[in-house]
This record gives sequence, structure tokens and C-alpha cells, in this order.
Amino acid sequence: MPRPSVREQIVDAAFEQFHRHGYNACGVKLITDSAGVPKGSFYNHFDSKEALALVVMDRYGETRHLDELANTKVAPLTRLRNHFEALAKDIVEYGYERGCVYGNFSNEAADHIPAIREGVAAAFDFWAEAVEKAIREAQADRSLTSTQDPETLSRFLINAWEGAIVGERAAKSGESFAAFFTLAFEVVLR
Amino acid sequence: MPRPSVREQIVDAAFEQFHRHGYNACGVKLITDSAGVPKGSFYNHFDSKEALALVVMDRYGETRHLDELANTKVAPLTRLRNHFEALAKDIVEYGYERGCVYGNFSNEAADHIPAIREGVAAAFDFWAEAVEKAIREAQADRSLTSTQDPETLSRFLINAWEGAIVGERAAKSGESFAAFFTLAFEVVLR
Repeated sequence: MPRPSVREQIVDAAFEQFHRHGYNACGVKLITDSAGVPKGSFYNHFDSKEALALVVMDRYGETRHLDELANTKVAPLTRLRNHFEALAKDIVEYGYERGCVYGNFSNEAADHIPAIREGVAAAFDFWAEAVEKAIREAQADRSLTSTQDPETLSRFLINAWEGAIVGERAAKSGESFAAFFTLAFEVVLR
Repeated sequence: MPRPSVREQIVDAAFEQFHRHGYNACGVKLITDSAGVPKGSFYNHFDSKEALALVVMDRYGETRHLDELANTKVAPLTRLRNHFEALAKDIVEYGYERGCVYGNFSNEAADHIPAIREGVAAAFDFWAEAVEKAIREAQADRSLTSTQDPETLSRFLINAWEGAIVGERAAKSGESFAAFFTLAFEVVLR
């Protein structure tokens, strides 16, 4: 396997460190130290920590189990459940720590850094559209009888999920995730 | 009016600065500068930034419109709606910025600081119990026909609200708050 480029090493390290420490507590030096590259090399590849954060958000998006949502071989409501279960599994595996990169960046940096705010908003929109598409398919095949607007349903569900993460990060009890699955799949999506 | 004590000035300033900047970006010096007191005076009143953060969380709790939830002169579902509308109004007035102190602390500090994690979990529990009580009253007077467990409903709703804040902080569109009110009051609480 070829050695990863310095840029790749920085992105990999930033993914890990941003996810672990959040945006503000994670400086360029922490990232380059963690990547094992000189701090000076950072600015050969990125204009700023902010620019790197946008790349990390894209990379994070690739891990958000969106492919499965579009797999029409699986019934749409099953896909939706599998999607959120896969997201839950990732977080349980981290002991309810780290949270969601989008949510973390929204909380920590959206107020102060317009590019981060726009990046997070675009990421949430992209995710909401994928969920909305599966909801439309479930309404079309009558597995979902709710006549609520699919865009509203989708936005509500992804926010409810983000909030469940916030709850579990404090409580670590599983109660917030359990409440999400009960209400989302027994009440909202029915 | 008597001059506020130094301790009071520090708590007031910390409330504002923590809410505005979050936990990690807000150091003791920023707080004491903002309070207009010498940095050295901080440790006469608080053992640590963490200890102050717990005091700020209590103070924040007093502003979370929980009293209205317990006012039995108002119908329980109306109280619940008024409660979340009051929370929404506070956030809209800040231009969708600042978020919720509990959610911010959960995201930024719960993983690393056990006392903050426990403080946030206790604050969410206290809030969830107040919401749960109103839900039980609504089930008792048949204004709410849902037979879902009130504890599960409450936990789901407060998390969905926290997530709506995360969504609005990025999008600032009102769409996440609108989706919350539609689904919470037309679907979940009915």
C-alpha cells in the first residue's frame, strides 16, 4: 500500500481529533501532532482550520450510512430503521461519547464562523433529503399511512435523532435512543 | 439597589459568556474581564471553571419556563405548548444563536468532565420530569389519547427540542422549529 500523503494524514487525524474534542478544543498543533507531521506542513495543504473542518465534514458524511437509505431492494421503512440503528450503533460503540460531527460543529462554531454554519446546514439538508426520499417511497407503497409532509417528517426525525445524541452524551443510559426508536417508528412513521 | 457582590458579578458574566461562546472557548479570564473584576478574585469564590459552570446551569434552569408547566389553572396540553413556545421565543430573539446551555455543555464537556456530565444529566432529568407530569395530567383528563408511556414521551420531546435547536443554529430558517411544533402537537401528543 502506498504511504498516505501528508494531506491525507492530516485529514485522517483531524477527523479523529475533531470528533473526539470538538472544534474549539482542537487546534492545528493537536491535529498535526496527531498526524505525525510538522505543524508547518499544515498550511501547504489547508488555508485554515476552518477549511480543514469542511473537508472533515464531507468525510464524515461518507460514514453516515446514507447509501443504505437509497437501496430500493429493501422496504423503505426497514431502510429508515436500519439507517438510524446503524447511526445508533456507531455511537454506542464509542460509549455514547463524541456525538455527531455536524451537531458538534453546529453547537460550537456555527454562531461565529459562517462557512462552518453553511457547511453544517448543507450537510443536514443533504441528509434530510435522503430521509425524505425514503419517507416518500413508504407513503407511495402505503407502508406509511401518515399524510404529514415528508419534508417536515424528515426534518423532525433528523433533529430528534441529533437531540437523542445530546441526551445520551449526558445520561449514557440508552433511554434517549430507546425513546427515539419507539416514538419515531411506532408513532411518527406509521 | 445594593452593588452586586463579586461572586454575583462573576456568575452573571459567566452565564452570558458560556451561553455565547460555549464551555471550551470561554476561559476564566474572559469571564472575569467581562465581569469587570480581577482574575485573581475568581478563586476566592469558585474552585474551578467547572464549579462555576454548575452554578450557571442552575441559574439557566431558572429561566427555562418550568413554572408554567406546573400551573394547573391552564390545561396541560396548552401548558406544554406554551412551554416549548416560550423556549422557542428565547432562541428566535437571539437570532437562533447561543443554543441551549445544557445541550452546549453536553456536547462540549460531558465526555471529558464527569461533574459537567452529571450536572447536565440531572438538568435534563429535572426538565423531563416536569414535562412528564404535564403529559400524565393530559392523559388523565383525556385531552391526550396517546397511551405511550409518559416518561418515554417526555424524553423524546425534550430531545427532539434539543435537536431542533441544533438544526436551527445551522439553518436559521425556522423550519426545524416549525417541524417540531407540527409533529409534537399534531402527532406525538394527541
